Amino acid sequence: MNRFLNLFSIIAVISLAFSSCSNDSDENVWTDKEAMVKAMQWQEQHPIFAVAPTDWTNGAYYIGVTKAYQATQDPIFLAALRTMGYRNEWKPYVRTYHADDIAISYAYLFVHTTRRGLVDLEPTKNWLDAHLFEPHAWKEGNDPVRQILWWWCDALFMAPPVIAYYAQQTGQMEYLDAMHGYFRETYDLLFDHEESLFARDVRFKVTGGESDRLEENGEKIFWSRGNGWVLGGLALLLEDLPKDYKQYSFYEELFVTMASRIKDIQPDDGLWRVSLLNPDGFEHGEVSGSGFFTFALAWGINNGILNEEEYKPAVIKAWKALRKCQHDDGMVGWVQNIGDSPVPANKDSWQNYGTGAFLLAGSEVIKLSGN
Amino acid sequence: MNRFLNLFSIIAVISLAFSSCSNDSDENVWTDKEAMVKAMQWQEQHPIFAVAPTDWTNGAYYIGVTKAYQATQDPIFLAALRTMGYRNEWKPYVRTYHADDIAISYAYLFVHTTRRGLVDLEPTKNWLDAHLFEPHAWKEGNDPVRQILWWWCDALFMAPPVIAYYAQQTGQMEYLDAMHGYFRETYDLLFDHEESLFARDVRFKVTGGESDRLEENGEKIFWSRGNGWVLGGLALLLEDLPKDYKQYSFYEELFVTMASRIKDIQPDDGLWRVSLLNPDGFEHGEVSGSGFFTFALAWGINNGILNEEEYKPAVIKAWKALRKCQHDDGMVGWVQNIGDSPVPANKDSWQNYGTGAFLLAGSEVIKLSGN
Amino acid sequence: MNRFLNLFSIIAVISLAFSSCSNDSDENVWTDKEAMVKAMQWQEQHPIFAVAPTDWTNGAYYIGVTKAYQATQDPIFLAALRTMGYRNEWKPYVRTYHADDIAISYAYLFVHTTRRGLVDLEPTKNWLDAHLFEPHAWKEGNDPVRQILWWWCDALFMAPPVIAYYAQQTGQMEYLDAMHGYFRETYDLLFDHEESLFARDVRFKVTGGESDRLEENGEKIFWSRGNGWVLGGLALLLEDLPKDYKQYSFYEELFVTMASRIKDIQPDDGLWRVSLLNPDGFEHGEVSGSGFFTFALAWGINNGILNEEEYKPAVIKAWKALRKCQHDDGMVGWVQNIGDSPVPANKDSWQNYGTGAFLLAGSEVIKLSGN
Repeated sequence: MNRFLNLFSIIAVISLAFSSCSNDSDENVWTDKEAMVKAMQWQEQHPIFAVAPTDWTNGAYYIGVTKAYQATQDPIFLAALRTMGYRNEWKPYVRTYHADDIAISYAYLFVHTTRRGLVDLEPTKNWLDAHLFEPHAWKEGNDPVRQILWWWCDALFMAPPVIAYYAQQTGQMEYLDAMHGYFRETYDLLFDHEESLFARDVRFKVTGGESDRLEENGEKIFWSRGNGWVLGGLALLLEDLPKDYKQYSFYEELFVTMASRIKDIQPDDGLWRVSLLNPDGFEHGEVSGSGFFTFALAWGINNGILNEEEYKPAVIKAWKALRKCQHDDGMVGWVQNIGDSPVPANKDSWQNYGTGAFLLAGSEVIKLSGN
Repeated sequence: MNRFLNLFSIIAVISLAFSSCSNDSDENVWTDKEAMVKAMQWQEQHPIFAVAPTDWTNGAYYIGVTKAYQATQDPIFLAALRTMGYRNEWKPYVRTYHADDIAISYAYLFVHTTRRGLVDLEPTKNWLDAHLFEPHAWKEGNDPVRQILWWWCDALFMAPPVIAYYAQQTGQMEYLDAMHGYFRETYDLLFDHEESLFARDVRFKVTGGESDRLEENGEKIFWSRGNGWVLGGLALLLEDLPKDYKQYSFYEELFVTMASRIKDIQPDDGLWRVSLLNPDGFEHGEVSGSGFFTFALAWGINNGILNEEEYKPAVIKAWKALRKCQHDDGMVGWVQNIGDSPVPANKDSWQNYGTGAFLLAGSEVIKLSGN
Repeated sequence: MNRFLNLFSIIAVISLAFSSCSNDSDENVWTDKEAMVKAMQWQEQHPIFAVAPTDWTNGAYYIGVTKAYQATQDPIFLAALRTMGYRNEWKPYVRTYHADDIAISYAYLFVHTTRRGLVDLEPTKNWLDAHLFEPHAWKEGNDPVRQILWWWCDALFMAPPVIAYYAQQTGQMEYLDAMHGYFRETYDLLFDHEESLFARDVRFKVTGGESDRLEENGEKIFWSRGNGWVLGGLALLLEDLPKDYKQYSFYEELFVTMASRIKDIQPDDGLWRVSLLNPDGFEHGEVSGSGFFTFALAWGINNGILNEEEYKPAVIKAWKALRKCQHDDGMVGWVQNIGDSPVPANKDSWQNYGTGAFLLAGSEVIKLSGN
């Protein structure tokens, strides 16, 4: 049994007193694009990070800003991207063995396409070369949890889309091949074929032994944000993966398989619970996981990979609910804090990556036909 | 004929659907000073640049902030100037041959007067020495467009006021003499005596040949912001030029000549069009050029160089219209994007230098008697 | 007689036209915690400093942010602290002989407790070692004003709490002993036993000679913020001083003695005047001094050192008045500018350390029972 879930029971009860997502005022008159601008403005005014402004939290946020700019062409997003990159000297965070630390380079790669000579891609190249092609303890697999380079499912959002984007810009396919090798390792280790979902890491795999972690309802623990990282990362990856790449269908099929399951388990109010298969555990919608899911499903529709008729109602329902999690000052609430498993959020809990998930969702929703 | 104007016809039609400048609410209750503070606050919260925070776009903006502080003595402006300078390590941008890159030093020079030991003027001095006194390809004049150091009229805003301010603070007149030499070259090359306006660069000079660029109404292309750079730059320059400087009258006469023409071609609603002699081309007022003109005309009145009775109505009309281009959140819209020739703006187009032009205009308008 | 007071008489009359503290709207619906968040948000959007972002003005502000975070656990405060420290590379300002320059390290020391490996404490340690244990002219006492290391009473806020916090974290008691030696020197030099208040520095000590500075009502000049630095600093210091430290009672007794006097001279409207014993000189409440006093008195109650029944009404009255000095956009006004003696403030005068004093006050007020 999962002991630490009990630790948060009291917190959960308190946070549920707020009921589910609903912002300060009953009605919010912003357009979707205005809501995205407000979210970004609030986040820019409240910089936050775990270890540094180049870490994965900002990485995920600025992928959202990048997609918001691409979708709206509003220069207010591009200005934020350029300022961030300039201040960070276009550097990834320092640990070349840790997939988290390259997520920020997605934004750098995009800004590079907006003006020649503005971005220094050398630090990104050096990081990727070390990460993909140099030896490291995790690659050797002697640690019980860290058995492979990308031993936790979040990594599939952090590194693969950056690698595919880099390969697309430079035409160097050996980066894609290396990426695919590591991706398959993670897939083989953590994908649960029965449930069509990813375990966060091997600690959450169920083997029938005494140490198995299970939800109170007896289900396996599938973390919403963890699966959001994977499905959202797949959408980003597929966008830059050449259609004729030999492994393209592997990714597309995985995307469709997961998308279908995610749609099927969507709660009635539109937002996924932190523990996907134990929705009654913490009964409120959570924004970071839900944002990534909404982004991915809408991206699938917009790119002809998911059936519009089937998926659009789920996307619209989710987006409407996400909009209600945004406060009147632009802040996006109901974001689960940094973690590795289901823990409740509340109306006032925010993080930059939650804003990023909101922006990603919005960037595809506004492209939906008739929306 | 000017081919690229056609490219923007569709955009123009769209932007005109917004009608001319008018902000979100019908009425705005801010005082002029409050409007200036709001403009600065919005801009500080939305940093933007072309290549770096020390580039000309920020240079023009922070000249506006400097003048706003001098006019209002509100420390909220000084705080922004100091923070900017500290973060930029009081450095100009890197190209010592390019006038754009020294504009930011105007603010540094001012901050230097507010507290001893706070500002490092060494980078500014080194930049100026290289720019004025070292050889460079542009000075040799072998390029068809870049025939002189300051081959584009914008340069007259970027460098001369900084040089005059530096000479005033250090008493080193050789900087003024060097400045005058380069200024005269630009004047000789680009000033159109018939029209009393500046061509943006030699590509816009009309020679009667096949390659002449003309507006659709047959007029020459005189870019509003380009002439705003010159006239605004002249006002800044005259402020620091010693009255007994041997060339003082050259600058004063040029200022009066241009001011008179600019006043005469002011559209009825107060704001100049992007193409000064083709007001029907893009029929909306544009803020960056208009802001610089308004600043210059008001400065001329406040300094006894322009006749108050004659010029004040034009200034008041322009300022009222500029105020209407500011949104309720402080953002100054209707600013033409970075460019080198007339292109339409719209209600939502903003740039830091547009905010700078707005602040410059306000800084002189609030000094007008009876205002 | 104090000549320079006359210089500000005209300013005083003007500022009094605003009446005392009262914000834009008649009523403000924020909770105390919301008011603290708004104050911090405004300040973060308006960075200001005297010489650098690591100077004492930011030092005092971020001590306020630290206490606000500790009291509310709202991560919005912690995010600001981390961003600030990261940008400043966890460095104190440069003068190792000047107590002002270590105040910023209080925030670094706190952030260090929130995540291992995030903060580099080496610069703080090096600064303290030089300050406490290396020779310096001020320690030799040849200057008529700068006779001791901490020759001005503000220093007792800037350095001792940082030293006590550092000693508490490292267990190195020799830092405390060195601190005590310097603190006693300041106490011996500047504490006025008759009045139970501190002279700002020896220039304000009254010796019966011709050069004595006195208020117009004949009283000695006791600067509100100066004494606020001392009393607020004592509260911070006592929090980290081991209860069994041999000199603990010295600090506790000094705290109680000053607190008692400060309470007794509280003006009816709740806020102390800039010159404590000449309340009719500049008749308005001032926020920085009052904020530090309110913090200290509330801290004394919350820690069982001051009698709740006796002191709580004074604290509540002061806090209510402080709240009225906050504008509707979050800005905390009525803060006396940088100085060393009583000078009037006004509704619109703000400084980061004033916001810090407001946050300190709020951080203890929200802990009061029944509040």
